[in-house]
Amino acid sequence: MDYARVFDDAIRRLHAEGRYRVFIDILRNKGAYPNARCFAGHNGSRPITVWCSNDYLTMGQHPKVIAAMEEALHDVGAGSGGTRNIGGNTHYHVELETELADLHGKQAALLFTSGYVSNEATLSTLAKLLPGCIIFSDELNHASMIAGIRNAGCEKKVWRHNDLAHLEELLKAAPADAPKLIAFESVYSMDGDVAPIHAICDLADKYNALTYLDEVHAVGMYGARGGGISDRDDAACRLTIIEGTLGKAFGVMGGYIAADRNIVDVIRSYAPGFIFTTSLSPVLVAGALASVRHLKGSSVERDSQQAAAAKLKALFADAGLPVMPSVTHIVPLLVGDPVKAKRISDILLLEYGIYVQPINYPTVPRGTERLRFTPGPAHDEAMMHDLTKALVEIWDRLDMRLAA
Amino acid sequence: MDYARVFDDAIRRLHAEGRYRVFIDILRNKGAYPNARCFAGHNGSRPITVWCSNDYLTMGQHPKVIAAMEEALHDVGAGSGGTRNIGGNTHYHVELETELADLHGKQAALLFTSGYVSNEATLSTLAKLLPGCIIFSDELNHASMIAGIRNAGCEKKVWRHNDLAHLEELLKAAPADAPKLIAFESVYSMDGDVAPIHAICDLADKYNALTYLDEVHAVGMYGARGGGISDRDDAACRLTIIEGTLGKAFGVMGGYIAADRNIVDVIRSYAPGFIFTTSLSPVLVAGALASVRHLKGSSVERDSQQAAAAKLKALFADAGLPVMPSVTHIVPLLVGDPVKAKRISDILLLEYGIYVQPINYPTVPRGTERLRFTPGPAHDEAMMHDLTKALVEIWDRLDMRLAA
Repeated sequence: MDYARVFDDAIRRLHAEGRYRVFIDILRNKGAYPNARCFAGHNGSRPITVWCSNDYLTMGQHPKVIAAMEEALHDVGAGSGGTRNIGGNTHYHVELETELADLHGKQAALLFTSGYVSNEATLSTLAKLLPGCIIFSDELNHASMIAGIRNAGCEKKVWRHNDLAHLEELLKAAPADAPKLIAFESVYSMDGDVAPIHAICDLADKYNALTYLDEVHAVGMYGARGGGISDRDDAACRLTIIEGTLGKAFGVMGGYIAADRNIVDVIRSYAPGFIFTTSLSPVLVAGALASVRHLKGSSVERDSQQAAAAKLKALFADAGLPVMPSVTHIVPLLVGDPVKAKRISDILLLEYGIYVQPINYPTVPRGTERLRFTPGPAHDEAMMHDLTKALVEIWDRLDMRLAA
Repeated sequence: MDYARVFDDAIRRLHAEGRYRVFIDILRNKGAYPNARCFAGHNGSRPITVWCSNDYLTMGQHPKVIAAMEEALHDVGAGSGGTRNIGGNTHYHVELETELADLHGKQAALLFTSGYVSNEATLSTLAKLLPGCIIFSDELNHASMIAGIRNAGCEKKVWRHNDLAHLEELLKAAPADAPKLIAFESVYSMDGDVAPIHAICDLADKYNALTYLDEVHAVGMYGARGGGISDRDDAACRLTIIEGTLGKAFGVMGGYIAADRNIVDVIRSYAPGFIFTTSLSPVLVAGALASVRHLKGSSVERDSQQAAAAKLKALFADAGLPVMPSVTHIVPLLVGDPVKAKRISDILLLEYGIYVQPINYPTVPRGTERLRFTPGPAHDEAMMHDLTKALVEIWDRLDMRLAA
């Protein structure tokens, strides 16, 4: 057994397919986002403009968030020092869970170290507690949901993306008395489309299925209080479990679920991914608490993000750039080839000081490689014009077609 | 299908077994650890002494760590804003990985959001890349390693705890050409015993197996530079992968692996639990960096922790308390019953202001329920005498036997 060759081959395959990932080494400038410093391809750091952050509303730089984190740091220190059960349960954790339960109109909430872990731990544990459970999973669900469903070891039925007829077909074909769980997202992060939550809940009611909604690309950004698409569509009370993140629009780090008290208690008590891990640092929890509270009461950030996204989509379309259809804040530009996507991204960074990561397989299907822009409150019109101009020049230079 | 009843029953089972967990709501007092404030069982907060934190060396309160985190908070903000590949790779991450590789004498290192995730993601990914791989797992391995091995879907052979003859028997019985991985821990956290690393590496050499060592309860605390038991025993270079945490002795949060460049590159490129998650907050990474650097150069904390552990073990033994054998900093006291363990812990907290969590199934096997103390540099002799006195009183009150 030649282990080294196996590993070499695995890396070679990535290079051969043009999808070997090089991490761009950056530091954001607090208070000046989307300006940042880049450490790649030159000596020392160089200023760049970031166009692909998931700190969608720049809350990671908000004075209230920074102040709350600084206060917690000086009040209790760096880490929690233990699992939630053994010394790592702080008053901050308890307060944030109460705040998140309220955000989604649920009885309870539970924090995890990340959104990935919240999906993996909740889905795998839930299905194990329901012997014979069948999970109905949207085909574009995130890798963390797929991991949770796979690790549950239960039966899985994949329905075509947002296709209600297909979902109903699968539900109808399943045994009436089998436990069922429909797992889906609200905003699909790479395309920017949205799930028909009420219609899915109608099917869940009809076939007695539980529902699990991943709102990580929507919390903070949709609904009057930032409760996500289920808040905007007044559908939160119809969902069994809503899952969210503290690491995107809320600007910090961590994940959570919100649900009925008993369901939260069951996950809290049975999920290894929750039980056997050091809890979130109280510093992060304090920051997230300030962020969630702020966005419950302020819509300025949401409104200005929507305006920025609409503006950028219009500029791209006017320039003939292949902007993909999106009804949300996400602005994807189709390239369709991993090598070209990487090439465009490299030119943007090195020649224009513009940072947008190429998105390739396995994050998106092969042949749909793209650049994905996330304009927010801090991206101004001048930046948008610079970006559009740069893209048009590169499209031209690489002999790629612009729409008439 | 009555879902609510299933969930109710699951919770009822825990209550019936006396192992329903109630999280103790606390806030540590920065700069005054092990003093903390407790919010349970009374109005407002009350001072307590913490005896069960995994912030083993009180680095979570160290001025260098706090200062580094504050600086990062003001320099770049709260969260990283993305995955390592998409906007979330900061200069702090790059520096910390270099520092950790050096700590273990390896070519490279890779950060994860937690130690749990590093174990789960690395083991499951590694085995998938090696078709036909057999993982040889110590029976007392942590839940996160068990999860990774299970999620790998490969063959698993469990060897009796630290039993070299049994491990060799299993290795010998496996096909000579099958890929093999031996997974074990250095310090077993609930008993405080240590693995014979060199002897296990001898077997790995003999049977051409890779080795995976979890050092989470040892990094920072053993070896001249805090590289763990593999550092102390001069065995790091013999191990394929060393896994560690930033959330225990280093006092912050997060996990990592250190290994040859190619292995790290493979995990970085193929592990969903690494790829599809928001990276560690740069604030945490900056704190961990300061902590790792400090403990590389300072042994005061290590020495004083060892002295405290020796002292507490001696006090317990002299008082006839059933202290379990441990050759490390961990001091477990056998109770053997989940209800009694909880009872003792409740009395300690409510009547004596002493916080130590009862450890019950599934963290330890049924029948070995215990109290687990983690004395450190900040626990002074007066606190130890108070603790011992309280325990003797409670043992007496509950008619439990003390040794003569």
